[in-house]
Amino acid sequence: MKIRGAGLRIGKLPTGEKNCITDVAGVRVGHVTLDYPLDASGNEYACTGVTAILPHNGNLFREKVTASCHVLNGFGKTTGLVQINELGVLESPILLTNTFAVPAVTQGTLQYMLEDNPEIGETTGTINVVVGECNDSYLNSIRLFPVKPEHAVEAIRKATAEPAREGAVGAGKGMVCFGYKGGIGTSSRKFEEYTIGCLVLSNFGKKEEFQWARYFGEGEALSEPADGSIIIVLATDAPLSDRQLKRVAKRCGIGLGRTGSHFSHGSGDIVIAFSTAHKILHFSEGPLEMHTQLREDHSIMNQLFMGAAEAAEEAILNSLSQAETTKGRNGRVVNQLYFKKE
Amino acid sequence: MKIRGAGLRIGKLPTGEKNCITDVAGVRVGHVTLDYPLDASGNEYACTGVTAILPHNGNLFREKVTASCHVLNGFGKTTGLVQINELGVLESPILLTNTFAVPAVTQGTLQYMLEDNPEIGETTGTINVVVGECNDSYLNSIRLFPVKPEHAVEAIRKATAEPAREGAVGAGKGMVCFGYKGGIGTSSRKFEEYTIGCLVLSNFGKKEEFQWARYFGEGEALSEPADGSIIIVLATDAPLSDRQLKRVAKRCGIGLGRTGSHFSHGSGDIVIAFSTAHKILHFSEGPLEMHTQLREDHSIMNQLFMGAAEAAEEAILNSLSQAETTKGRNGRVVNQLYFKKE
Amino acid sequence: MKIRGAGLRIGKLPTGEKNCITDVAGVRVGHVTLDYPLDASGNEYACTGVTAILPHNGNLFREKVTASCHVLNGFGKTTGLVQINELGVLESPILLTNTFAVPAVTQGTLQYMLEDNPEIGETTGTINVVVGECNDSYLNSIRLFPVKPEHAVEAIRKATAEPAREGAVGAGKGMVCFGYKGGIGTSSRKFEEYTIGCLVLSNFGKKEEFQWARYFGEGEALSEPADGSIIIVLATDAPLSDRQLKRVAKRCGIGLGRTGSHFSHGSGDIVIAFSTAHKILHFSEGPLEMHTQLREDHSIMNQLFMGAAEAAEEAILNSLSQAETTKGRNGRVVNQLYFKKE
Amino acid sequence: MKIRGAGLRIGKLPTGEKNCITDVAGVRVGHVTLDYPLDASGNEYACTGVTAILPHNGNLFREKVTASCHVLNGFGKTTGLVQINELGVLESPILLTNTFAVPAVTQGTLQYMLEDNPEIGETTGTINVVVGECNDSYLNSIRLFPVKPEHAVEAIRKATAEPAREGAVGAGKGMVCFGYKGGIGTSSRKFEEYTIGCLVLSNFGKKEEFQWARYFGEGEALSEPADGSIIIVLATDAPLSDRQLKRVAKRCGIGLGRTGSHFSHGSGDIVIAFSTAHKILHFSEGPLEMHTQLREDHSIMNQLFMGAAEAAEEAILNSLSQAETTKGRNGRVVNQLYFKKE
Repeated sequence: MKIRGAGLRIGKLPTGEKNCITDVAGVRVGHVTLDYPLDASGNEYACTGVTAILPHNGNLFREKVTASCHVLNGFGKTTGLVQINELGVLESPILLTNTFAVPAVTQGTLQYMLEDNPEIGETTGTINVVVGECNDSYLNSIRLFPVKPEHAVEAIRKATAEPAREGAVGAGKGMVCFGYKGGIGTSSRKFEEYTIGCLVLSNFGKKEEFQWARYFGEGEALSEPADGSIIIVLATDAPLSDRQLKRVAKRCGIGLGRTGSHFSHGSGDIVIAFSTAHKILHFSEGPLEMHTQLREDHSIMNQLFMGAAEAAEEAILNSLSQAETTKGRNGRVVNQLYFKKE
Repeated sequence: MKIRGAGLRIGKLPTGEKNCITDVAGVRVGHVTLDYPLDASGNEYACTGVTAILPHNGNLFREKVTASCHVLNGFGKTTGLVQINELGVLESPILLTNTFAVPAVTQGTLQYMLEDNPEIGETTGTINVVVGECNDSYLNSIRLFPVKPEHAVEAIRKATAEPAREGAVGAGKGMVCFGYKGGIGTSSRKFEEYTIGCLVLSNFGKKEEFQWARYFGEGEALSEPADGSIIIVLATDAPLSDRQLKRVAKRCGIGLGRTGSHFSHGSGDIVIAFSTAHKILHFSEGPLEMHTQLREDHSIMNQLFMGAAEAAEEAILNSLSQAETTKGRNGRVVNQLYFKKE
Repeated sequence: MKIRGAGLRIGKLPTGEKNCITDVAGVRVGHVTLDYPLDASGNEYACTGVTAILPHNGNLFREKVTASCHVLNGFGKTTGLVQINELGVLESPILLTNTFAVPAVTQGTLQYMLEDNPEIGETTGTINVVVGECNDSYLNSIRLFPVKPEHAVEAIRKATAEPAREGAVGAGKGMVCFGYKGGIGTSSRKFEEYTIGCLVLSNFGKKEEFQWARYFGEGEALSEPADGSIIIVLATDAPLSDRQLKRVAKRCGIGLGRTGSHFSHGSGDIVIAFSTAHKILHFSEGPLEMHTQLREDHSIMNQLFMGAAEAAEEAILNSLSQAETTKGRNGRVVNQLYFKKE
Repeated sequence: MKIRGAGLRIGKLPTGEKNCITDVAGVRVGHVTLDYPLDASGNEYACTGVTAILPHNGNLFREKVTASCHVLNGFGKTTGLVQINELGVLESPILLTNTFAVPAVTQGTLQYMLEDNPEIGETTGTINVVVGECNDSYLNSIRLFPVKPEHAVEAIRKATAEPAREGAVGAGKGMVCFGYKGGIGTSSRKFEEYTIGCLVLSNFGKKEEFQWARYFGEGEALSEPADGSIIIVLATDAPLSDRQLKRVAKRCGIGLGRTGSHFSHGSGDIVIAFSTAHKILHFSEGPLEMHTQLREDHSIMNQLFMGAAEAAEEAILNSLSQAETTKGRNGRVVNQLYFKKE
């Protein structure tokens, strides 16, 4: 269950209706989960998946959205950040998967986008695909590459605006957080007329670092988790420039730190943020665009900062409370962190 | 009193002997506090000061130390960061003061360094002075420039390795944190053979954001604090490169976030870090230097990350628990946040 | 004379009417030049000054402009960049001076701005002053601090929209470029409906690096120039976001490189850019602003890139061709680089 | 022919023996070129390839090298830069290819590295693969994905220390530079006891921007080249830290600018640099490493800056002078830029 359903509240701001990144109008989430043996013994096992986050319902290449990113700790293989930093736009879905599946997922997403846009690489330029990853090699036979390009296409196609499934699902299937089962979690905040939503792929931390242990039941944790990571996707409908989005994205690190993380050396802790307030048209005439933009010193900016921190923290806790005990390769098991109802 | 003296422990790592940045061998701290009326009515009032942190006992220009910095939120006027970013060294003391005193304090520090080094600007190049600041204009008549260049020189000259005074002292004299009296605070951590120490100038936050309120007594807080900031100075004797130092410096933001801060829009939240492990000689022959450096993936790196987060958080709490109720301009008073002994 | 007057054209784009940064409507430039002995022997000599660039005629604090900066090489003491990077605005004039005069010039500019804005530090926050510098210690007795705060105020007050004086004037009085007399230079480009203008303070390079020597007459160069630097101020009326301005600012490095510079180790090579297209109001109600912004992929963007590179290169050459042979401390002389008419 | 063979010298520093990146001891280069029709008509055509640069002969994962990168303009899809920025090391070969082949080439390189290192993803962490790209869609049927993972493996396996082939070879097969045939080019500089070498994949610029046209013969250029890019790989045996490498890498932009580029909007202009002076062991005990490092202010640093600018410029010119007229998809032809012997 979501932690809020059991009485644990994070922060002060109210959540959106679904307490999910899909509270930001137009945002959709899709999962493909892989869960099957890769050999007769079952020692090799596919315990992994793909999650797609789509910023809106339209053609993502022709109608780009403002975007930014922030690297909290860069021991990671996320792709697409160079161009986001330069241009401040997102022109593809954001895909999450395991570390070694980045090429396959990039390939699948690329093929999907090319199919939808016959002009790419023909009469117009190329496209920047964004794929984030964590290392699920404790449970998943990552070296055997169970994720294929078509899994990315499937995750994109399955994306809906419903409350996103959480825990051991999609890219979160094989992830481990604070020694317990982690994976996908999401949360949102709503204030004034704006919504900010967060979806995480959690795969970091040691049991003894966890700051909310008093709310959770005992259970055997992994003593030596593999190198971890967290990918944080942030969506908002507030009209922010890419620089403003980067400022908001940085505050996700506050929420991450409050769960107990120290952004460990071997962790790829990366935030990707976008605003749905504007569509930047790929095909357009005339030299000028009109933008409505949040005034930098308005109090809403500080509320967005607070919302990003709160939603990131709550999304991480949801990724734990929603995950089920999961079996993977070599008979390994990662336990659920039972949430104690109050 | 320091919070630890009253039974509140932050984090897991043990502190150094003095629980102070001066636990890092060679580091010294000096304060000059200004506390007097500037007119007959006392409505204009000097409630401010200067704090100097010296990385070692020798000639700081001729024996530079490895340094780095990290801007958590850049609404601030700290000087000297451009060159630290380019060259990765510190060649001056670090001075802290109020926002409008940065020119005077830079001037004084420059004069001090020129006196000690007759070759600067004559037969060798220039010198990079580093001054951090927060805005103490609620209590201090900042527009009247009470801080003079000689106050910087005095703070440098008074620096000692003793446990640094905390609270409403030096640059901390007029600062406000979470609506209560803040200012200077310090803490340290010791593990393996290394020490990491932190000194903060705290001047941020609203009362309702404070995460440790349950340990403190009631008292009237400022309802609308001015724009805040925090300067965090981090020292260690671990042999780190400037890139490694930057990684460690970033983790101070975790500690800051855990106190309740959201790095608000109007805040200059800046970390300046140095390692005393090497002296980089200004005058040297031959093209090569030998360095001993911490292996990036050794577990000590993660301990340094944890130590930076813990020491920053504890230094902030000490800046509150050690500060006394303070009167400033226009009869304004900022109350002490009484620490409740357990 | 300006190089273009003598028949040397840089690049392809046409210049503005004055071939000066003041071709950007509203931009003004003011110089204060110091040129006198500081002792009876004349061995100590003030050969320095201050140059002020104002983005518009109004109140610069209450009507801020979009701004950005780019550090080509960061061996420098320029102040104010931290806040420009965070907020993307300029709220003060840009001042140029010698390295050790940064505190005095910051102090003077601060006092000027406080006088104009009694609310700063009283009922509203602080102000970010931007001061760039180069080291003129070969000719100027930099250790004696001949520049005082009032010189900054005077430079600001003298600023006009006339064609700016170039060469050994203002902050350029004591500067040396490619072993010859450098200092202030300016140039502009005009295309479509937009203007981009550049003003440099040149103080870098060795004689043998100079790429345009064939157009200049012989003369004795300094064989061992002191550590150099260049500050490049870029102005445009094109409606650019701060991110777009940073992209344009980076291209000034192309022009600098084409003159022969390799951004040497000891050089503070820094670009500060602003757009006058929008005024961002300090006092404003409501959460939203409307912006007109250049479409990123419109061909005007590439023209701005080209214009920045061309104007920076031509401004540097003008700083040489306009400078006169100059005497300074210890009887030292730096020769003019005579421009050969074609 | 190489431009130097025809009498055109760039800069002042002497070249290495082969005037090639492989002058840096241990560095190897391998090409796989694809040149065949993809359908019966030949309208769809594979005119592309893969180039591999290996920093040394050993196991690249277990013996990493110091590395850095610099983004001149970030309209590109290069992968692996996040981790290089965080950790300052390279642990894989650097691969170059076309934009849409990045996933296939990453996949192939990953498989190659996993085969060599059975512990990756099993008992140790993951691996960071670095792949740079340019868009060769004018000549190559980029949407049909002719490059397969095995081409990456083949390029790595074929790598030798011989003088690298240049022009329309490997990843350079389909590239266009200043409207003429570009592709792979290389050059080196040798001074004191150090060598710096550069290899480029050139695919940028318009004919009218080209600054060296007077040395080349006439020929019909493409009037509207597709969006361009350049990837610059820099190798040296000088003992540099990652921060120092980044400083050197930035100077490649000077050489690029001198050829005529303005780092156009649609260009991914990226430098990846490494030093072979140290091996950073993946498996190691004890917390400390010993490093020999170049003193920052030694004149060799400035020579490295100059060498990087010169070698980058000459490598680009070699990529033009060595390229042959090339036919691609839809019967398109890109002409060689004939070099005029003097």
